Amino acid sequence: MKTLFWKENKLYLLDQRKLPHEITYVICGDHYAVATAISEMVVRGAPAIGVAAAYGIALAALQNQSSPEFLPALQGAGDDLIKTRPTAVNLRWAVKQMLVTAKEYATESKSVITTQLINKAEAIAAEDIKVNRLIGAHGAVLINDGACILTLCNAGALATAGYGTALGVISAAYTNQRKISVFACETRPYLQGARLTTWELSQAGIPVTLIVDNAAGLLFQRKMIDMVLVGADRIVSNGDVANKIGTYPLSILAEEHNVPFYVAAPLSTFDLTLSSREEIPIEERNSYEITHIAGVKITGDEIPVYNPAFDLTPAEKISAIITERGIIYRPDREKITALFAQDGEQDDE
Amino acid sequence: MKTLFWKENKLYLLDQRKLPHEITYVICGDHYAVATAISEMVVRGAPAIGVAAAYGIALAALQNQSSPEFLPALQGAGDDLIKTRPTAVNLRWAVKQMLVTAKEYATESKSVITTQLINKAEAIAAEDIKVNRLIGAHGAVLINDGACILTLCNAGALATAGYGTALGVISAAYTNQRKISVFACETRPYLQGARLTTWELSQAGIPVTLIVDNAAGLLFQRKMIDMVLVGADRIVSNGDVANKIGTYPLSILAEEHNVPFYVAAPLSTFDLTLSSREEIPIEERNSYEITHIAGVKITGDEIPVYNPAFDLTPAEKISAIITERGIIYRPDREKITALFAQDGEQDDE
Repeated sequence: MKTLFWKENKLYLLDQRKLPHEITYVICGDHYAVATAISEMVVRGAPAIGVAAAYGIALAALQNQSSPEFLPALQGAGDDLIKTRPTAVNLRWAVKQMLVTAKEYATESKSVITTQLINKAEAIAAEDIKVNRLIGAHGAVLINDGACILTLCNAGALATAGYGTALGVISAAYTNQRKISVFACETRPYLQGARLTTWELSQAGIPVTLIVDNAAGLLFQRKMIDMVLVGADRIVSNGDVANKIGTYPLSILAEEHNVPFYVAAPLSTFDLTLSSREEIPIEERNSYEITHIAGVKITGDEIPVYNPAFDLTPAEKISAIITERGIIYRPDREKITALFAQDGEQDDE
Repeated sequence: MKTLFWKENKLYLLDQRKLPHEITYVICGDHYAVATAISEMVVRGAPAIGVAAAYGIALAALQNQSSPEFLPALQGAGDDLIKTRPTAVNLRWAVKQMLVTAKEYATESKSVITTQLINKAEAIAAEDIKVNRLIGAHGAVLINDGACILTLCNAGALATAGYGTALGVISAAYTNQRKISVFACETRPYLQGARLTTWELSQAGIPVTLIVDNAAGLLFQRKMIDMVLVGADRIVSNGDVANKIGTYPLSILAEEHNVPFYVAAPLSTFDLTLSSREEIPIEERNSYEITHIAGVKITGDEIPVYNPAFDLTPAEKISAIITERGIIYRPDREKITALFAQDGEQDDE
């Protein structure tokens, strides 16, 4: 089951709103459709959103073959895409990669630029899977035989072009014959844990038990959790992490119970332009996600709702960040700077 | 809107499963109906369950007028009722009060005993409301003008015979002209916060905003919470508290952010026979509460679920317990023993 794929100049997005009950794809023919799909959660997960946005720029190029303002049109499409989800930084990163490619070929014909943009989007998608496999390989060493892992939201194949970040680490460990099991927090309001993580892990044959987010505390009290492992939507230069709402409380519980707290994310999730968590914009989503579940109204009329989609975990609560370039134990500004200095692959955004 | 009332030898229970969309009552004609109503959450909240169970014993007496084994039948009814919810201790307390009354009048006719049992159940209900008003009056002094209070589950009029414990304190503070506001955690899995607390507070004109349980962490990070105030299902002799699943994580967050964490509960919620939280039985409920919301299936098929209904907050995380006999700051065994020694009202169960 592919999270997304490109076929005959269209982007196919697995409609994650309908999982696990229906397997259907939303077909996007222009970047507006991609932007709508991102804001309406057809596709979600920081890396997957980034890849979708890259294809969105390719679609904008295809749509603007007769435009006199080709490069500005791509820039405009990028702005439209970036606006959809303000917290996850991979989106911005991927759009930037695409616009840099467009500029590199600026003196060529629109047709050549467009071909290069399609190739670049395909490369970003392929690279994402490669990177996730490296994250998995690095992270698997952290998982002892028999470990019970708590995770929140979905940082699996569905959140990426494939394989997953946090769930990629779990898959890698499982493939290494380790007897592991997972508790998946259901992850209100959008229930990515209940709908997506349990489905992905079950399909992979990895033992998973669903809990409500509220139950995490009791699990720690009863020593049922050996480690917490989550993904990230943005990691800033001091190691602070923005991730799905509910992540920060898990980090506090983990600390209280001396359980390691791990974050798995590609380098494209790092935003070195920000120095600490206070600078990260937190997306607020509509109240409908809370007042209605599966289309059924839960609350009374006109109840005010506050629906922030992410929270902020301070670096000092994080035991390690697992990246494709290795593990950063006890992350801080110095170690992150050193990791990025290791070679020139990362652009100095 | 009464949570429950007695009329023409029947117990009327407001069907809380249907709130806030429908106002209907379940009418119980025998103790079996009461037991079913308690286990199926028609009535919930430790004090309300206790009162309902008291009436359940009165119904058992009415049903057994021709039984040769009248007192044993009442004892059996008590056992049936106690079995329904193992964590909340008010249930056990109320059944015991009723059986003590039956024994006091054991030499009288069944008819006299039955009348006394009905009177006793009515007295327990009336006493619950009186006690809640005292809790409210004591606790209101803890709430500063302009305070923003975080609460979980529903510890309001609906959780009691009337007025409420934690929400009773909030009502009392609000009546004292304090400008207060409340964040209500939706309280998965059963959504008592989303369905009941927002409804109760809105009806009282008290400003309330609904959040998912996962959002509490970010609210603390943003200094939006001045105090946490919750009810309790059982408080043991060292001050440890069993309450709705998700309470313990709030206590850890409150401690991390130097925010006071208060518990409001009547003396009937104390279980002095247990010395610490490890001894409290934690009810596990069915997986349907998690896999389905409002009757709609959320997860895939055959996903294993763990659904504990309560967690345990250590006394050292609690700033104060508010009772009808006053406030126990920094609760511990010594202070609780002293409170109960103040007079002879509390039976020495």
